Amino acid sequence: MSGDLAIRNVRILGGPTVDLVIRGGRIAAIGVGLAAPGIPALDGKGRLLLPGLVESHTHLDKTLWGLPWRPNSAGPTLKDYIENERRILREVTVPIARRAGGLLEACIARGTLHFRSHIDIDPEFGLAHVEAMLALRERYRDIAEMQFVVFPQTGLLIRPGTAALMEEAIKLGVETVGGLDPAGIDRDPIRHLETVFGLAGKYGRGVDIHLHDREESGVWQIERIADFTAATGLKGKVMVSHAYCLGQVPRARIEALAQRLADLEISLMTSAPADTEIPPATWLREIGVNICCGSDGIRDAWSPFGNGDMLERAMLLAYRLDWSKDEMLAAALATVTDNGARALGLHDYGIAVGHEANLVLVEAETIGDAVVRRPAERTVIARGKVVAKDGKFIDSRL
Amino acid sequence: MSGDLAIRNVRILGGPTVDLVIRGGRIAAIGVGLAAPGIPALDGKGRLLLPGLVESHTHLDKTLWGLPWRPNSAGPTLKDYIENERRILREVTVPIARRAGGLLEACIARGTLHFRSHIDIDPEFGLAHVEAMLALRERYRDIAEMQFVVFPQTGLLIRPGTAALMEEAIKLGVETVGGLDPAGIDRDPIRHLETVFGLAGKYGRGVDIHLHDREESGVWQIERIADFTAATGLKGKVMVSHAYCLGQVPRARIEALAQRLADLEISLMTSAPADTEIPPATWLREIGVNICCGSDGIRDAWSPFGNGDMLERAMLLAYRLDWSKDEMLAAALATVTDNGARALGLHDYGIAVGHEANLVLVEAETIGDAVVRRPAERTVIARGKVVAKDGKFIDSRL
Ligand SMILES: [Zn+2]
Ligand SMILES: [Zn+2]
Repeated sequence: MSGDLAIRNVRILGGPTVDLVIRGGRIAAIGVGLAAPGIPALDGKGRLLLPGLVESHTHLDKTLWGLPWRPNSAGPTLKDYIENERRILREVTVPIARRAGGLLEACIARGTLHFRSHIDIDPEFGLAHVEAMLALRERYRDIAEMQFVVFPQTGLLIRPGTAALMEEAIKLGVETVGGLDPAGIDRDPIRHLETVFGLAGKYGRGVDIHLHDREESGVWQIERIADFTAATGLKGKVMVSHAYCLGQVPRARIEALAQRLADLEISLMTSAPADTEIPPATWLREIGVNICCGSDGIRDAWSPFGNGDMLERAMLLAYRLDWSKDEMLAAALATVTDNGARALGLHDYGIAVGHEANLVLVEAETIGDAVVRRPAERTVIARGKVVAKDGKFIDSRL
Repeated sequence: MSGDLAIRNVRILGGPTVDLVIRGGRIAAIGVGLAAPGIPALDGKGRLLLPGLVESHTHLDKTLWGLPWRPNSAGPTLKDYIENERRILREVTVPIARRAGGLLEACIARGTLHFRSHIDIDPEFGLAHVEAMLALRERYRDIAEMQFVVFPQTGLLIRPGTAALMEEAIKLGVETVGGLDPAGIDRDPIRHLETVFGLAGKYGRGVDIHLHDREESGVWQIERIADFTAATGLKGKVMVSHAYCLGQVPRARIEALAQRLADLEISLMTSAPADTEIPPATWLREIGVNICCGSDGIRDAWSPFGNGDMLERAMLLAYRLDWSKDEMLAAALATVTDNGARALGLHDYGIAVGHEANLVLVEAETIGDAVVRRPAERTVIARGKVVAKDGKFIDSRL
C-alpha cells in the first residue's frame, strides 16, 4: 500500500491542465510536466479533478442496502416512522457489517471519501449499532474517513437509559453528540439541550441535532441551540440537520438568528428534500452561514430513495433552489466538498500540496457539467490509491 | 430490418417470469416456454420489462446537447429567458439535425421511444425549426414515435404573422396546436384561445398549452381552456403543460375545475420542478385527472439540467411528492408510460399481443426499484430490434 501515483492531465475544479505527484498517500507536487521517476502514472485525459466528496449526514447503520426490495410500510407521522423502523430492523437478519459495508463501498465508488454517519443507540439494543460501526470504520480506515454521531432515534429523555448509552458510545470512540427534536419528540427542549451540550462539554465534542420541528417551534429551538453553543464555547462545532423551519417562516423572523448562525459557525445540513421546505440557502449562503448536504437515510425503512452519490445530492439541491448559473452550480458542489469539510471539521481537506490525496476524476467539462450530469465515469483515489473506477469499488486493501 | 426476436426470462412490470415472441416488429405471443424456431433469442435474465417510455413534453429543436458547456446567462423574468434563448440560438451554428438528433439518441438509449416535442415557430426564422424536425422524424421513423406541437415561444398575438406560421406548420405535418400563457405573455387570453382552438378545430388537431401564469390568473385560464375544450368537442385531445397555478391556490378553489379536467380528459403535464409549486397530483390522480411527465427543455438556454431519462423524471416526481409506497412509485412510472400514452393519444401502447414491440429491459427488481434507482443497465427494443444497450444507442438502421 505505497500510495505513490502520478496523475497526468487533469483539470483541478475545471482549472488549467496539470499533473499531480502523490507520494506516501499525500500530494507532493502539483504542476505542469512534473517528473515522477519510478512512480506509476495515471493518464487523466483532461478530466475534471475534484476533492473526495463529503457525505455530511447519513445513517449507514440502518440501511437495507443489498437486501431484497421491501415496500415502504411506514405510517404518516414521524413517530410512526420511528416505530416502523424499529420493527423492521428487528426482523432483518443481515448484519450491519454487510448492509453498511455494501453501502459504504457504493458511496466510495461514487467518490465519497469523508462521511459523517449517525448511529442509533437505544435501550432495546444498546450499543450494538455503535460496536458494529466502529468495527466497520476500522475495516475501511485506509480508504474512507468516517466520523460518527451518537443518535437517540427513539428519543432521549423519554427513553430512560439513553443518555447513559450516549455517554458509553462517546467513550467507545463516537465523536459527536446527537439530538432529535428537543420539543417535538423529547417534550422538554431545554433539558434535552442541557443533556446533549452537557455531554459535549464534558468530553470536548461537537453537537449535531436532527430538527424536524416546524415553523416557530423549530426556529425557537435553533435560537436555543445558538444560546447553548455560545454558552458552552462550541463555536464551529455544532450542526443543525434539516431545519425545515427556517424555510417555513418569513425571512424577517430569522434575520438575527441567521447572523448568529454565521457568527457561531453553526452549520446547516440539508438533504435537499423536494416535498417540504428547506432553509433559504441562497440568502443564508450570502450572509456566511455554512450549508452542507447529506443523503440522510439511503434505502432504509424511512425511504427507498437515495444512492449515496453526492454529486447527485448537489444536483438535487441546485434543482431545488433553481441554482442554474455557473456560480451557483459551484456553490452546490461546495455543499458536498468544502462546506461539508468545514462542518465536519476535517483537517487539510482539498487538493493542495501536503494534503492527503483523496480525489475524484470525473469525465466532465466543467463543475456545472459535473453537477447537472453526474457522470458515472469516475475514478476515485483514496490516499494515492485507486479505490474505484466507473462505479465499481476496487478493494485497495487486498 | 426483420424485427423478429424472442425475449426469454423477463418479468413484465414485475410480474412472473415469461417469454415474448416478436414477429415483424409486433408482439406475437407472451407466455412460458414459448417455442420460436429460427428467431434470434435474447436472454432477459429475469430482468424487469417495461413498455417504451413516453416523453410527453420536450423541446428537442432548442437543445444545446453535444455543444461545449455554456454558462446559463438568462435574466430573471420569463421574457428575459425568451429573449436570451433567441439570442443564443442565433449564435449557435450547429444545426438542429445534429443537436436534436444527438439528444434523441441519448433519450432512446435510456428507453424513451415515444416523444411529444414542441417546435418553435417565429416570424424571425419562420418554419426553419419545423422543417428540421420533420426531417429528423423521418430519419428516425423506424425507431421512435415522434409527435410535434407547433409552439409560439415568443408569443402569438403579440408577434404578427405567428398564427399564419402555425397554420403552415400544421399543413406540413405538425400534429398539435400549441399556446403560451394566453394572459401573461399574449395579453389577450380569449383571442389567444380562439386562435389556438380555432386552428385545432379547422384541422381536427389537439391542443397543448404552456401555462406558467400564476395563482388565480392561471386557474381562470385553465377554466377557459376547459370551456373551449367542451365547446370545440376536443375532449381527450387537450393538454395543459406545467399549470403551476393548480398548486398555488387552495384545493377548494379548484375542486370543480379538477372534476372538469377529469371529465373532459384534459391531461396535465409536469416536469416535476422542485423550485416551484406543481399541481396537487396525489389528489388529482385520485379523482381521475390524467397526469404525465416531460423533461421540458434539456440542456438548453433555459436550463442546464436534464438528461432525457424518463425513469429519472419519474423519480423526481416521486421525490417531489413523497411518493414512497409501492403503489405510488408505480403511479410515478405511469406518468412516463401509460399516462403519457393516454395524453398523447398513442394507439396500442403497452406490452400486449398485437402491439408494437417497444420495450425496455431494466436491471431492476421491482417497479419501485427501477424508479428510485434508475439503473443504467437497460436494453431498449424498438419494433423488435435492439436499439440501445447500457446507455449506448445502436443504430438499427445500419
Ligand atoms: Zn438523519
Ligand atoms: Zn416547454
